[in-house]
Amino acid sequence: MARYDRAITVFSPDGHLFQVEYALEAVRKGNAAVGVRGTDTVVLGVEKKSAAKLQDSRSVRKIVNLDNHIALACAGLKADARVLINRARIECQSHRLTVEDPVTVEYITRYIAGLQQKYTQSGGVRPFGLSTLIIGFDPYTGVPSLYQTDPSGTFSAWKANATGRNSNSIREFLEKNYKETHGQETIKLAIRALLEVVESGGKNIEVAVMTKDQGLRQLEEAEIDAIVAEIEAEKAAAEAAKKGPARDA
Amino acid sequence: MARYDRAITVFSPDGHLFQVEYALEAVRKGNAAVGVRGTDTVVLGVEKKSAAKLQDSRSVRKIVNLDNHIALACAGLKADARVLINRARIECQSHRLTVEDPVTVEYITRYIAGLQQKYTQSGGVRPFGLSTLIIGFDPYTGVPSLYQTDPSGTFSAWKANATGRNSNSIREFLEKNYKETHGQETIKLAIRALLEVVESGGKNIEVAVMTKDQGLRQLEEAEIDAIVAEIEAEKAAAEAAKKGPARDA
Amino acid sequence: MARYDRAITVFSPDGHLFQVEYALEAVRKGNAAVGVRGTDTVVLGVEKKSAAKLQDSRSVRKIVNLDNHIALACAGLKADARVLINRARIECQSHRLTVEDPVTVEYITRYIAGLQQKYTQSGGVRPFGLSTLIIGFDPYTGVPSLYQTDPSGTFSAWKANATGRNSNSIREFLEKNYKETHGQETIKLAIRALLEVVESGGKNIEVAVMTKDQGLRQLEEAEIDAIVAEIEAEKAAAEAAKKGPARDA
Amino acid sequence: MARYDRAITVFSPDGHLFQVEYALEAVRKGNAAVGVRGTDTVVLGVEKKSAAKLQDSRSVRKIVNLDNHIALACAGLKADARVLINRARIECQSHRLTVEDPVTVEYITRYIAGLQQKYTQSGGVRPFGLSTLIIGFDPYTGVPSLYQTDPSGTFSAWKANATGRNSNSIREFLEKNYKETHGQETIKLAIRALLEVVESGGKNIEVAVMTKDQGLRQLEEAEIDAIVAEIEAEKAAAEAAKKGPARDA
Amino acid sequence: MARYDRAITVFSPDGHLFQVEYALEAVRKGNAAVGVRGTDTVVLGVEKKSAAKLQDSRSVRKIVNLDNHIALACAGLKADARVLINRARIECQSHRLTVEDPVTVEYITRYIAGLQQKYTQSGGVRPFGLSTLIIGFDPYTGVPSLYQTDPSGTFSAWKANATGRNSNSIREFLEKNYKETHGQETIKLAIRALLEVVESGGKNIEVAVMTKDQGLRQLEEAEIDAIVAEIEAEKAAAEAAKKGPARDA
Amino acid sequence: MARYDRAITVFSPDGHLFQVEYALEAVRKGNAAVGVRGTDTVVLGVEKKSAAKLQDSRSVRKIVNLDNHIALACAGLKADARVLINRARIECQSHRLTVEDPVTVEYITRYIAGLQQKYTQSGGVRPFGLSTLIIGFDPYTGVPSLYQTDPSGTFSAWKANATGRNSNSIREFLEKNYKETHGQETIKLAIRALLEVVESGGKNIEVAVMTKDQGLRQLEEAEIDAIVAEIEAEKAAAEAAKKGPARDA
Amino acid sequence: MARYDRAITVFSPDGHLFQVEYALEAVRKGNAAVGVRGTDTVVLGVEKKSAAKLQDSRSVRKIVNLDNHIALACAGLKADARVLINRARIECQSHRLTVEDPVTVEYITRYIAGLQQKYTQSGGVRPFGLSTLIIGFDPYTGVPSLYQTDPSGTFSAWKANATGRNSNSIREFLEKNYKETHGQETIKLAIRALLEVVESGGKNIEVAVMTKDQGLRQLEEAEIDAIVAEIEAEKAAAEAAKKGPARDA
Repeated sequence: MARYDRAITVFSPDGHLFQVEYALEAVRKGNAAVGVRGTDTVVLGVEKKSAAKLQDSRSVRKIVNLDNHIALACAGLKADARVLINRARIECQSHRLTVEDPVTVEYITRYIAGLQQKYTQSGGVRPFGLSTLIIGFDPYTGVPSLYQTDPSGTFSAWKANATGRNSNSIREFLEKNYKETHGQETIKLAIRALLEVVESGGKNIEVAVMTKDQGLRQLEEAEIDAIVAEIEAEKAAAEAAKKGPARDA
Repeated sequence: MARYDRAITVFSPDGHLFQVEYALEAVRKGNAAVGVRGTDTVVLGVEKKSAAKLQDSRSVRKIVNLDNHIALACAGLKADARVLINRARIECQSHRLTVEDPVTVEYITRYIAGLQQKYTQSGGVRPFGLSTLIIGFDPYTGVPSLYQTDPSGTFSAWKANATGRNSNSIREFLEKNYKETHGQETIKLAIRALLEVVESGGKNIEVAVMTKDQGLRQLEEAEIDAIVAEIEAEKAAAEAAKKGPARDA
Repeated sequence: MARYDRAITVFSPDGHLFQVEYALEAVRKGNAAVGVRGTDTVVLGVEKKSAAKLQDSRSVRKIVNLDNHIALACAGLKADARVLINRARIECQSHRLTVEDPVTVEYITRYIAGLQQKYTQSGGVRPFGLSTLIIGFDPYTGVPSLYQTDPSGTFSAWKANATGRNSNSIREFLEKNYKETHGQETIKLAIRALLEVVESGGKNIEVAVMTKDQGLRQLEEAEIDAIVAEIEAEKAAAEAAKKGPARDA
Repeated sequence: MARYDRAITVFSPDGHLFQVEYALEAVRKGNAAVGVRGTDTVVLGVEKKSAAKLQDSRSVRKIVNLDNHIALACAGLKADARVLINRARIECQSHRLTVEDPVTVEYITRYIAGLQQKYTQSGGVRPFGLSTLIIGFDPYTGVPSLYQTDPSGTFSAWKANATGRNSNSIREFLEKNYKETHGQETIKLAIRALLEVVESGGKNIEVAVMTKDQGLRQLEEAEIDAIVAEIEAEKAAAEAAKKGPARDA
Repeated sequence: MARYDRAITVFSPDGHLFQVEYALEAVRKGNAAVGVRGTDTVVLGVEKKSAAKLQDSRSVRKIVNLDNHIALACAGLKADARVLINRARIECQSHRLTVEDPVTVEYITRYIAGLQQKYTQSGGVRPFGLSTLIIGFDPYTGVPSLYQTDPSGTFSAWKANATGRNSNSIREFLEKNYKETHGQETIKLAIRALLEVVESGGKNIEVAVMTKDQGLRQLEEAEIDAIVAEIEAEKAAAEAAKKGPARDA
Repeated sequence: MARYDRAITVFSPDGHLFQVEYALEAVRKGNAAVGVRGTDTVVLGVEKKSAAKLQDSRSVRKIVNLDNHIALACAGLKADARVLINRARIECQSHRLTVEDPVTVEYITRYIAGLQQKYTQSGGVRPFGLSTLIIGFDPYTGVPSLYQTDPSGTFSAWKANATGRNSNSIREFLEKNYKETHGQETIKLAIRALLEVVESGGKNIEVAVMTKDQGLRQLEEAEIDAIVAEIEAEKAAAEAAKKGPARDA
Repeated sequence: MARYDRAITVFSPDGHLFQVEYALEAVRKGNAAVGVRGTDTVVLGVEKKSAAKLQDSRSVRKIVNLDNHIALACAGLKADARVLINRARIECQSHRLTVEDPVTVEYITRYIAGLQQKYTQSGGVRPFGLSTLIIGFDPYTGVPSLYQTDPSGTFSAWKANATGRNSNSIREFLEKNYKETHGQETIKLAIRALLEVVESGGKNIEVAVMTKDQGLRQLEEAEIDAIVAEIEAEKAAAEAAKKGPARDA
């Protein structure tokens, strides 16, 4: 199998692009990331790798703005992420300058996925080791949306989705528990989903919330802690409730 | 065999271009797509991969317009498809601008197949992992047509054809059941063909209809469901009819 | 052997260009094509691959005009053929524009063969998987001619010749049966040659006839059928004649 | 494994970029380097390879200024380091010229990490065999900071960190002993950390201190010796103290 | 051995350029060619591959003019030959235009050999599979000359020489039978040499004669036949003469 | 191991750049070279390969000026050396022209080492097989200096150092015997060091001395012979002295 | 070993450039060449490969002028030689045009060796399979000189030297018999040296003599024969003399 991954990204006899699939492995090793779309709120949450003890808490955010109304979270190679983010930001600004209008969420998603595709078809480069979750509000209709792109350059729209480490477990959780939410409920759903795979709760989670009017807001650790506590309380109550009737019997 | 697929797309000792054949494997793994040409209507239908539960139903359409009078469906790598579609759309517009006339369906088919061919003969790139079905009405004669292109850059004209997953079964069905149709009958034939390989019926199918005057129209899920129901009813009736006389005996 | 076909077309220890020979294999897998030069008529005939049932009969012709007085048929990769044909047509037109005279048949043959040669000597490309038969009338002398080119870029002039699948059988037939012909007889000889290797007769054959005054004319299926019938009648008569005297004995 | 490291930096089947990981080995073989951020002081310390006896003590410094308010120490290939340092210095100056403002520490860190990333994704080059520690004061807020970059092009902010030979031991020491310090205490912590892995004390250590007002100052060997002596005295005292009560018992 | 012929033409451990030697194999498989320099006449003769029965006798000549006073014959790949011939002809004309004087025979020989050498030293191309015999009269001194070039780009001047299939036998014949000749005798010597390796005599031979005043003249088949007959008559007479005395004994 | 040295200089799994290390082998096979820095004098000495008997004594010097105040000696591939020397000389002159001031010794050392580094990181070239010793006086402060560069592009400053064949022995000698010297003593130390590994004394040694005021002066063979004789006399005396007291005992 | 000679000229683990050493093998297979420097005369002599019987004696000279006062002989690939010679001649002329002075012998030697070096360090080309002997008179001082260059790009000055086939034997002869000569004696020494390895004497030798005033003069075969005869006479006399006294004993 090894012999298909030289020089450029070529097809294997059964129609796979190996370099793209290997890049997906890099994504699967990256931090978990989750996105949930509410009616008036879109939320991105990412697992913070159990940060080294002395790492600066003011360190680089994993959820970043591309424009006032668009934000992005990644799973995979951090250094590759910066390249994509820089190019996407420049595209957002240059679009504003030339077309005199902000980009739509789909436009910038297409742009990012297009860049990712290009690195799978030309020689002399390797694919990006990166999947992205992109959230935003349409600047004209105000409709919220959530997109995902992957190393092959494919993109798709979602109500809620996850990528990176253990994303399958998160996605299963979301499929079981998703319902149309708004405001605080959307945030809570995203955090509950992340807690499925992140152990030490609030301090290993980064969450950012976007609303149509206020744009992106990174939650404070205290806010996250409060919601985590609330979630755990509800969970305990639910379990107590389950056991309660049992005792009565 | 593996040793022929390095660096550029070269011939194997028995005259095959392996990278092209491997790319065809990628097509064979892609969603099924079907095209049927009626006298006044051309229809494209594609299988929607059993979409993830939370995927946005407003998500990216698999049947897209290249120009007002031309549409395209693909089987294969979705990210590659976007590259081809973008370039074809630009060609349509630039043709209108420079020649001051819309492209013909054959013209744009040649253009797309030409691009696909180029990626099989030059170094530093791999072929597109993509077959396309192209439908449209001639802007001058109003004649409908249906073309197919494949990763080698070959194209051909059809009354009805299929590509992607299980396309052989669909093609066999079409060969048995095709007759000149028009209007609703053309749509029904395309959907019947798809149902040969798509299990859960209407909700996993995307259908678009083009007429000379109205251009492309994506069918609503409800419309598809209605036709699927009608097809199943007819089928049941036919089977009953078959059994009926038997009981009488 | 496999190790000679990397990167560029290089010589093997015994002086072969393997990629060129492998490309010839692609030609040998292609449809049969035949060319016959009469005194006032030149004829090209090609086998139509037992077309899929639903393929459009108006589909792409395999015999094409390069200029009013020059036509071409190919055996090999159809997608490669379009590249060569486009470039040859452009050369014909640009020659008319710059030199203000039409090209001669030999000129455009040299041009096509030159292109084919270039793809066997430079890196980063593969040879064309294509042999061509080129017919035409000299625009100055009115002399008809028939040329053949192959993937190595070699060309040669012929009274009658064949290429593609089973071309050896056709060539043997032609060597046995060729005599200087004109008009209808030339057409008949070409069709008889093709029938040596094409089974189901007229409907799997495409024939085009060029005369000095009328240029290229594609024969209607009915016309071909009539000639096929005539040929079969003669054949039956001949065989009957052979057996006849035997019975008499 | 060896077969993934040809030509360009490509993914291995499990999602690693081997050339990047091999470059990290070059870093792990390089001199130890430590950075400590105090409230008013940032300190860089590097191990000086037991210099050859006749090497010039005035020889090339391992801790260098990028701009008045920013300094850098490296672990890995010295020759690669010069390339990065030169390009970073030019960026600092050109930023001053074009924007008429000094760069921030994060800005230049991003620039350096970006260069490192680029060498992991394009063909024809190898990654830099280099990790860097970057210290500086924000030219606008006066806030001190410490960053680290590595061959993959990743960067992160730290209170204290180490790279190069035995950096794990130093990091463990720092995690156990770090507390917010200022002035002389910050310097002492950095030297204590280095002494964990450097044997012959002061003469094999290079230390540079940056304060907001005075910029970077390289410590004289005598100054380092004095602090080393102080550290050893404290250590002896501490051990005596430990043993003392034991004797009393 | 196979491993020396990749990518570019490189040296083998014993100092050979393998691609050049393999190209020589292509020459050794090509038609035999002979050149003889007389005092007032230079003659080129080439073996015509037992032409296919229907090949056009007006087909491409193997002996071609480069300029009025210079002609060339090749052994090896016919398609490569056309490339060299075209470039040499252009050089002849461009020399006339810029220097206002015709090229000398040596000048154009150097030019051709120089092209051949270039294709043995640069990457991305293969050597020409071609040896050439070049004849001509010096435009200033009127002195006739005969040169040979080979795939390595070496050239040399000869009284008489051969290349291609069985050239060793022809060269041996020439060494035994060469004497200074003029006019018809020179032609006869060339034909006698070719008959050493060409079986079916005149019809498989192409001969062209150059004199100072009349330039190149291709001999008619009849002329060649006459000379062949004369040669055979002389041979028979000689043998009879040999046997004669024997009988007498 | 062999498989890491293709195409470009890449890392091996344990973080080495093999091509650089192999280039160092070329240096270790080169002539020995030594440099000694005195207080007012800097000396370079190189072993002259037991020159072929007929080689011209006026032949190419191994110690060359880069500018009036800077000189260089090399160990390794002579042809590579010329390339580096030419580029360094041009840099010296162009610096004078553009900055209107001579380069410092460190400046040109950085320039040379920078060139050497560049050839270890880019594709399509191999590293220089070359280590250099560079001496000179600072044009502003008059301070003498001695630098060494190696194929990796690393450089360092020295009181005394050696490179090339047996440089370890010379370096050990220098470490044992070095003390701050001036004038003639510096020259003597350099020659004594070389005599450690060069057998036939003065005639196989080339020595050049640089002082602040007089620039570089190549020593005559006679001068060298005189110093060699002096050294041997001292050595004999020392040994006699050692044995003397022994006899007395 | 074979695996070090791909793509570009790289180092082997023990510091060799294999392609350069293989190129030297091509030199060792080339004709022998000798150069002898007298006080007023410099002589080049080359072995003429036992020329084919019909090769033109007016054929290409192996000893050629680069400028009026400089000449060159080669051993190795003849076609490569022409490339080097052309470029050196152009450099000589362009130097005269721009500097308005002829080149010195060392200047053009450096130029040629520099070209040879460049082909050992860049990708996409192979080294020249060529060693050269360059003779000439300094245009300013009138001093004669003899240089040698080899495929690595190294050059050196000599009193007398040889290259090509059996050059070791010739060099040994020269080392035993060289003394400062002038005029005819210099020519004789060169011829005697060549006769050590060339069997059939004068007719297989090409000799050219350069003096300050008359430039290069190619010796006539008769002249060479006369000198060969003289040498053989002397040799016979010497041997007779040796035996003579023996008989006397």
